[in-house]
Amino acid sequence: MQAPDFERWERVQSRLAKSNLSALVCRLTENVVLLSGYWPILGRSIVVFPTEGEPVLLTPVSEIGEAERGWISDVRTFRAWRIGDIDPEASLTKLLGQVFAERGLLGKRIGYEGSFGDIAATQRFFEPWAGIHSVLDSWVKAGGGGEWVDFGPQLVDLSGEKTDREIARIRLANEVADFGLAAFFRESVPGRSEAEIAAAVESAILTQGIGYKGVTHARGEAEVISGVRTGSAWDFPTTTNRVVESGELVLIEFAVVADGYWSDLTRTVVAGDLNDEQRRLAAAQRAAYMAALQAMKPGVPDAEPDAAARKALEEFGMRDLFAHHTGHGIGFRYHEAIPSIHPDSKGVLKAGMITSLEPGLYGETFGYRVEDNVLITHSGAEPLCRSPRWPGLED
Amino acid sequence: MQAPDFERWERVQSRLAKSNLSALVCRLTENVVLLSGYWPILGRSIVVFPTEGEPVLLTPVSEIGEAERGWISDVRTFRAWRIGDIDPEASLTKLLGQVFAERGLLGKRIGYEGSFGDIAATQRFFEPWAGIHSVLDSWVKAGGGGEWVDFGPQLVDLSGEKTDREIARIRLANEVADFGLAAFFRESVPGRSEAEIAAAVESAILTQGIGYKGVTHARGEAEVISGVRTGSAWDFPTTTNRVVESGELVLIEFAVVADGYWSDLTRTVVAGDLNDEQRRLAAAQRAAYMAALQAMKPGVPDAEPDAAARKALEEFGMRDLFAHHTGHGIGFRYHEAIPSIHPDSKGVLKAGMITSLEPGLYGETFGYRVEDNVLITHSGAEPLCRSPRWPGLED
Repeated sequence: MQAPDFERWERVQSRLAKSNLSALVCRLTENVVLLSGYWPILGRSIVVFPTEGEPVLLTPVSEIGEAERGWISDVRTFRAWRIGDIDPEASLTKLLGQVFAERGLLGKRIGYEGSFGDIAATQRFFEPWAGIHSVLDSWVKAGGGGEWVDFGPQLVDLSGEKTDREIARIRLANEVADFGLAAFFRESVPGRSEAEIAAAVESAILTQGIGYKGVTHARGEAEVISGVRTGSAWDFPTTTNRVVESGELVLIEFAVVADGYWSDLTRTVVAGDLNDEQRRLAAAQRAAYMAALQAMKPGVPDAEPDAAARKALEEFGMRDLFAHHTGHGIGFRYHEAIPSIHPDSKGVLKAGMITSLEPGLYGETFGYRVEDNVLITHSGAEPLCRSPRWPGLED
Repeated sequence: MQAPDFERWERVQSRLAKSNLSALVCRLTENVVLLSGYWPILGRSIVVFPTEGEPVLLTPVSEIGEAERGWISDVRTFRAWRIGDIDPEASLTKLLGQVFAERGLLGKRIGYEGSFGDIAATQRFFEPWAGIHSVLDSWVKAGGGGEWVDFGPQLVDLSGEKTDREIARIRLANEVADFGLAAFFRESVPGRSEAEIAAAVESAILTQGIGYKGVTHARGEAEVISGVRTGSAWDFPTTTNRVVESGELVLIEFAVVADGYWSDLTRTVVAGDLNDEQRRLAAAQRAAYMAALQAMKPGVPDAEPDAAARKALEEFGMRDLFAHHTGHGIGFRYHEAIPSIHPDSKGVLKAGMITSLEPGLYGETFGYRVEDNVLITHSGAEPLCRSPRWPGLED
């Protein structure tokens, strides 16, 4: 059991009090991690987080050993999936009712995740749980009726600024990702298929990430594209069995999760030596990256680093090749809404935010992107991973 | 573009007509696959499936090339994620309104996924989309108001019986899984860590699955546990860096997805030669597996194969070691509700159903499970993968 992240708890409690809520009930993986430091194996763990008093983690009995790695000390378990057990949703709902009764929450005004779109994966990442029917009907009933208020937008907002503890965990996810990127650099040679490169990268996360500095669970998703396919690197293409040829661009879009905290990185290399055109592309991307990075510090509007990146590209005549945003939030999910480094963003950078930094250049036959996760510090901005950024390009 | 799976479309249309619905709108990955044969890259594709007339697939413009691998010919795209685009949910909602207007669906009675729990992963599996806020508010509004009816339970029911086309695709997912199991058998030797074995298995899926018999996208999740950890093989444990020792049990819980169709398999091996106790365990599990398999055919209550498995274990004095169900549906997701081979099930097996078959034996220090996916044929039942089941055990 870790000590609680009191900084996080106080921020959430303060927000709940302002909304006149008696408690918050969270079921989505990203918010269970936010409140408890526990990354659920399956989706059936929920946190009852009262505005005053200790929070409670409800989890299947099979996850008790894992759940104790988080920082909620009041863990209640329910049985499920064995002969004689009632179904998991019913077990969980019953336990929720008991906890509500015990904590004097029956019939009170409760915050819950009423609106969401993308959700984070659990440890068993192929089948996450959105738990819709439970929330809308049985939970409210088990909770003694009362008024259930959509706290989803507030959770998005609260997730934007990370605590010191959270920053350390996201930094760790970036360090684990470095193992994968090392494999990417090593394997991106002529004759290898995209699938072989991706497999080597994901293997590195499993075999080198688990056990690294106390990481218990680590997984990577590597989408590797090569040659002319890099031109659609912003269209979310996925790995194929295309074989890389000498001199071609190879690009990796790479997500890593370590114990529930995420990184989102991109690198582009050439299988062989860079030709002049590729060198110019890399130099332009580097200029855009550096310009945006230097523009990042607390108090700066989100739109400024975005504008700085575009301005840097102008000098290369490549502004039009950069069609998307410069960055998005990252940490509890692969992609978060805050900050949004985008021309239209109305947000302002704050210390403790973590943003992706990913200017990208795309044409019919080429794509080049380098993406880092950058922490907004008190005085500036710091990339969290250590992997080389523009291999083959002179300093 | 493939020819449509008319058998599937007719079954859904018939069910919609019975419920007096004018159309069905599906956003969950598993149901987009069910209706269109297309496995979305991101979660933002939806199918508008009218009770009469052609269905429409709405997908981000970046997915058009992939979407055409499915069988809906009327594909409409929306722009998103580029500078100047409105946000993806708003783009999708606007397009939905246009399609509704064009098809005379505005203000009509519409079925949608109102209730669900676990959901299937998209190609980009770390961040699936549940799309809650969109459905509950803007979609109904864009659809001209009207009555939106929860069709979730009916979709679960419809997914239970597979069409010939679907059976072929799930069989293919099982064949791809065989590559992974071959790696599992090869790598489960003393001195390897669980993580190394899992990495080899998942690599096999990426490098051998993609391109196999036309498979475009294939991914595996291998959870490998060993030694005394196998005793908790039903508690959904995940891969660690534990190193396998000679003579120990090694168990893999293994999900594979090939172009949106799923398999769910388990194997148990000994790293070395089986001792007498392990041999007895394997023999008992085999007896339970075979008894359940032989009891499976159309018209048989779900509870019967379950009872047959337990009866077989009685003869080994091991009935109490088998604490869970004998099987669950599989195909559009990792775990489906129909059939449920369980003592309390009220269901009846039908031709075209695909069930897991997974008697498991667990003690304090050991666990042994073999799991296959079994098709209910017109006259009996057929396991869909070809991997050895009880390696080391004499026939």
